[in-house]
Amino acid sequence: MPDPNIIPQKHRINKDDRKNLLGNDSFVIWFTGLSGSGKSTLANLLEQRLNEKRVLTYLLDGDNVRTGLNKDLGFGDEDRIENIRRLGEVSKLFLDAGIVVLTAFISPFRSDRETVRELVGKENFHEVYVKCPLELCESRDVKGLYSKARAGQIPKFTGIDSPYEEPLNAELVIDTSALTIEDSVSLLDDYVSGLLKRK
Amino acid sequence: MPDPNIIPQKHRINKDDRKNLLGNDSFVIWFTGLSGSGKSTLANLLEQRLNEKRVLTYLLDGDNVRTGLNKDLGFGDEDRIENIRRLGEVSKLFLDAGIVVLTAFISPFRSDRETVRELVGKENFHEVYVKCPLELCESRDVKGLYSKARAGQIPKFTGIDSPYEEPLNAELVIDTSALTIEDSVSLLDDYVSGLLKRK
Repeated sequence: MPDPNIIPQKHRINKDDRKNLLGNDSFVIWFTGLSGSGKSTLANLLEQRLNEKRVLTYLLDGDNVRTGLNKDLGFGDEDRIENIRRLGEVSKLFLDAGIVVLTAFISPFRSDRETVRELVGKENFHEVYVKCPLELCESRDVKGLYSKARAGQIPKFTGIDSPYEEPLNAELVIDTSALTIEDSVSLLDDYVSGLLKRK
Repeated sequence: MPDPNIIPQKHRINKDDRKNLLGNDSFVIWFTGLSGSGKSTLANLLEQRLNEKRVLTYLLDGDNVRTGLNKDLGFGDEDRIENIRRLGEVSKLFLDAGIVVLTAFISPFRSDRETVRELVGKENFHEVYVKCPLELCESRDVKGLYSKARAGQIPKFTGIDSPYEEPLNAELVIDTSALTIEDSVSLLDDYVSGLLKRK
C-alpha cells in the first residue's frame, strides 16, 4: 500500500555523506544457522574486532528486536515472515545511515533470506552460514531450548519440528564444528576487511 | 508477549563504545506539527548543519518509513498507534547505535508522543513543536494535500477532520509563522549544540 499522498522529498544528507563522514561503506552481514551454532558468539566477536578498527556497527538480534520492534509477533508462519520483513526494512534504514549491520537470527527459510537480499540490495547483503550439525547444537544446548523443544514446550522449533533450509550460495560458510572460535572470527574478519576496502 | 525463550546475551559492544567512537552522545529530536508547518524542511536543514559538524545523524520520515517498514499500515487509529510504536522502537535501536535521530512526522496525538518519550527514555527525547496556524499551512499546501483533504479525498487528515494535539511541554517550540527559516534553524542548532556538549 504505497500511499499516493506520501511525496518523497529529497534528503539533503544521504548515504554518501555518511560514508564520507565515517570513512567506510555500509553493508549487512547476515548470520544464519541453527540455534546453538554460534551466530551470536561470532557476531559479537566480529563486532568487537570492528570496533577496535573504529568501524561503526550495529548488531540486531533477538535481544533487541524480539523484545522491542517485533514483540507483537509470535512464531507462527505469518509472524515469522513479518519478523524477517521488518528486520530487512530496519537493516535497510541502518545501511542508509551508513552503519555496518550484523544480524544474528536463525532465519531458517531460504525465501525469507532472499527477500531481505533483494530488499537491501544484493551488493549490500552478505550471508554467513554458521554451519553446525544439529546433534552438536543440541548437545551444546547453551540456552536449554532444545530440551524444552524435545519436551514439546516450544512448538515449531527449528531443527526439531520445523525445517532449517541451508543456504545454497552463502557468501561465507563457517563450520563451527570443525573450526575454533578464534579461527572462525579470523575468517570473518578477513572477509569483512575486504568489504571495508571497497570504494 | 516477551518470549521466555529469548534469553538476553550481553552485547560486547554497547552504546558507550559507540559514543566513544563517534565522540558524542545520541538522542532523538522529535519534530511534531501540522502538515506544511515545516518539519521536514527544518529537520533536513538541521541534519545538514550537524553533518558539517561531523555528527552522524539519521532522519526518519514518511519517505523512508511509510514506504518501507510501515508500508503495511494505513491511517486508521489502530494503525497510527502501531506506526508510532514502531517509530519509537526503531528510534530506540538507532539511539543504541549511537546515532542522533531526527524524526519528522505529524504525530498528532499527545499520548503517542508520550509513549515514545517513555520508550526511548525521557533524557533522550527532545520534542520540537513546529508551530504554525492551520490557515497558513493550508495556504502553503506544498504537497497539495489540504485541497485533497477538503475535497474529501483523504479521510482523517490532521487539522481538517482529525485533531492535532499541541504539545504542552515541548523542549523547543519553533513558530514558523513568525520566524524565518534561517532563524528557525539557528534556534535548533543552538539547542542541539547544547545536547552535544553533554557528557
